[in-house]
Amino acid sequence: MALIVQKYGGTSVGSIERIQAVAERVKRWRDRGHQLVVVVSAMSGETDRLIKLAKQIQPRPDPRELDVLLSTGEQVTIALVSMALTALGCPARSYTGAQVHILTDNVHNKARIRDIDAARVRADLDAGRVVVVAGFQGVNEQGDITTLGRGGSDTSAVAIAAALKADECQIYTDVDGVYTTDPRVEPRARKLDRITFEEMLEMASLGSKVLQIRSVEFAGKYRVPLRVLSSFDEGEGTLITFEDNDVEDAKISGIAFNRDEAKLTILGVPDQPGVAYQILGPIAEANIEVDMIIQNVAPDGKTTDFTFTVHRNDYPQSLEILRKTAHNLGAREVTGDDNIVKISLVGVGMRSHAGIASRMFAALAKEGINIRMISTSEIKISVVVDEKYLELGVRALHAAFGLDRLSS
Amino acid sequence: MALIVQKYGGTSVGSIERIQAVAERVKRWRDRGHQLVVVVSAMSGETDRLIKLAKQIQPRPDPRELDVLLSTGEQVTIALVSMALTALGCPARSYTGAQVHILTDNVHNKARIRDIDAARVRADLDAGRVVVVAGFQGVNEQGDITTLGRGGSDTSAVAIAAALKADECQIYTDVDGVYTTDPRVEPRARKLDRITFEEMLEMASLGSKVLQIRSVEFAGKYRVPLRVLSSFDEGEGTLITFEDNDVEDAKISGIAFNRDEAKLTILGVPDQPGVAYQILGPIAEANIEVDMIIQNVAPDGKTTDFTFTVHRNDYPQSLEILRKTAHNLGAREVTGDDNIVKISLVGVGMRSHAGIASRMFAALAKEGINIRMISTSEIKISVVVDEKYLELGVRALHAAFGLDRLSS
Repeated sequence: MALIVQKYGGTSVGSIERIQAVAERVKRWRDRGHQLVVVVSAMSGETDRLIKLAKQIQPRPDPRELDVLLSTGEQVTIALVSMALTALGCPARSYTGAQVHILTDNVHNKARIRDIDAARVRADLDAGRVVVVAGFQGVNEQGDITTLGRGGSDTSAVAIAAALKADECQIYTDVDGVYTTDPRVEPRARKLDRITFEEMLEMASLGSKVLQIRSVEFAGKYRVPLRVLSSFDEGEGTLITFEDNDVEDAKISGIAFNRDEAKLTILGVPDQPGVAYQILGPIAEANIEVDMIIQNVAPDGKTTDFTFTVHRNDYPQSLEILRKTAHNLGAREVTGDDNIVKISLVGVGMRSHAGIASRMFAALAKEGINIRMISTSEIKISVVVDEKYLELGVRALHAAFGLDRLSS
Repeated sequence: MALIVQKYGGTSVGSIERIQAVAERVKRWRDRGHQLVVVVSAMSGETDRLIKLAKQIQPRPDPRELDVLLSTGEQVTIALVSMALTALGCPARSYTGAQVHILTDNVHNKARIRDIDAARVRADLDAGRVVVVAGFQGVNEQGDITTLGRGGSDTSAVAIAAALKADECQIYTDVDGVYTTDPRVEPRARKLDRITFEEMLEMASLGSKVLQIRSVEFAGKYRVPLRVLSSFDEGEGTLITFEDNDVEDAKISGIAFNRDEAKLTILGVPDQPGVAYQILGPIAEANIEVDMIIQNVAPDGKTTDFTFTVHRNDYPQSLEILRKTAHNLGAREVTGDDNIVKISLVGVGMRSHAGIASRMFAALAKEGINIRMISTSEIKISVVVDEKYLELGVRALHAAFGLDRLSS
């Protein structure tokens, strides 16, 4: 008997029929003798409907009240999923984030989970019930409802799995696993049976939409075995594993990319200690996440040029903040570009194989693709290129690294 | 400066425009220096939409999960009303029933309020905020969400007013006050400026839909001044008062009626101590409310006939229970009728004026209306008649007691 946490996203619970299909799947797992916790998102379209209501009243809805509003989306789903389970003769009980004390910080709309009180869930499991928990939401120390931001339901599931020391956390989605790259861009993309946590972390953070990055971080930190599967087909999906050795022997596991990038550059900043903090501090205070960061000494040797990337939605606000900072620091100029994308090669094999970077740059050069920024880590090489080269770049790299062939 | 609790029903918050109108009204009261607590229902149609979703899954939805589902209706409204207030520059904060600890018993879908922790609300009021609370819902001792049943938002408002010792509890609705009878049945019906609590209690319990009965009981018990007003027009509405003396000098304040009645009779029950309890006990255990009760010794002197009325929705279940009871008690027969209505004369003046009952029976007899049951209290006389006589009976009594004329 295993304790399994399953997470179903908005599409998987998008209609009464789909909710009933989820209940049947959960029941099959339970009939095999497992204990089940089910974490669900709002029915697809519901969150957008609620946001639209709010925006009719306030173009920028009050963050605290927006969380009160949006959290109703998952609350509807947990009740319906519990009813569907009960209707199948499978005892079930639903809980909101607040009810199982998914304690978060105070950042409304983008809260982070701090703690979970698993006692109530455990009592229900021991009593033979399936426990259905609202994803995406929690409660702060003042008892106010918080939400984790889009995609937060994955994080909820992993956090609950960690708190319960579950045997596996299964993320059901509309794809049947993790692919070498997005099949919509490269039809030859191939499903991976396994991928390491580090690789998945890079893939997720780079815009592969299968899993939300914080959920992967959480899973890695608390060593929760994570599996991505389809909620529409049967199949083993992709297991996210802790061991490098077991992994297929490919140097590169996949190619991730991110369309929603924008870059900002501040030129001619007087070079002095603490300048990076002075530039990025105000950005962080505005709760904007910075991705790539590059700093170079300018040709004059006395000033420095500083470039970073942010999510495209945060571009206008970042530009505004950076212009103020430039003024305060006496920098020469601020430039920016939101017509860029990032493409990354990811693979643990990269560690022990030289020459990956040069092969990557050669493949891109051959297609005449100009590289704007480069950033590397132990298991990843990322390049920023003009938006128009995204598909061409991904396909060129997919072919150059033989990802369409099984390596075994 | 007064502390005022205002309650707005589903129609009053039925669209974004109406929510904005509510916010403007609340702001006007606050601008006059008052402290405001606003209790709201789900947007009209929302509760029905949610029930429909649930019934697609379970014809009789699990009561606990139904409460989880339905409570989202008011949660959406509190967020939107708070946003609308904030948009008008009026600081506001929303709370679910659980968040302000509206503690109830465990009867899902029909819970009763036991206690309210007003500390959180008071802290916000003292900080100058309008507090927006979800009506209709609470939380039991286990932390499960409960709902009070249809119309429960009125009770929430009064309970909050009582806990805060508010100066007035205003119930905004789609009528502009309490009438001598339903104007849809008798167009000559007249709005009352004041009515006593006892009279209102009888009017409400007899099916005048303006206020939910439990809210009036609560208001009477905790001496909360209650006012019914229109959320669409200006006007003073009807004040529900504690003093008899001030009341208009009419013997009769109004005529209430209830279409949703059914009566059940158990015939030939062996007459022995405890028989009433044996008959009504199982009905009460099924959470069915019994209204009129009549017991007569049968002509044989050894058995008794026992008649009572219930809500028409509870008729099939009541009949089933009563048949079992009849079998156990060795009673002769069970009969029933769900084509009946109840019409009642209500007025504190009745206490000191003889002859009201005979005038009532005479007025009905003149129209050829057969009376099936009679029940009286200090300030009320109720008769049960065939459903087809409802309108005729109400109009005959309205005229006979001169309710279309101002008595002053």
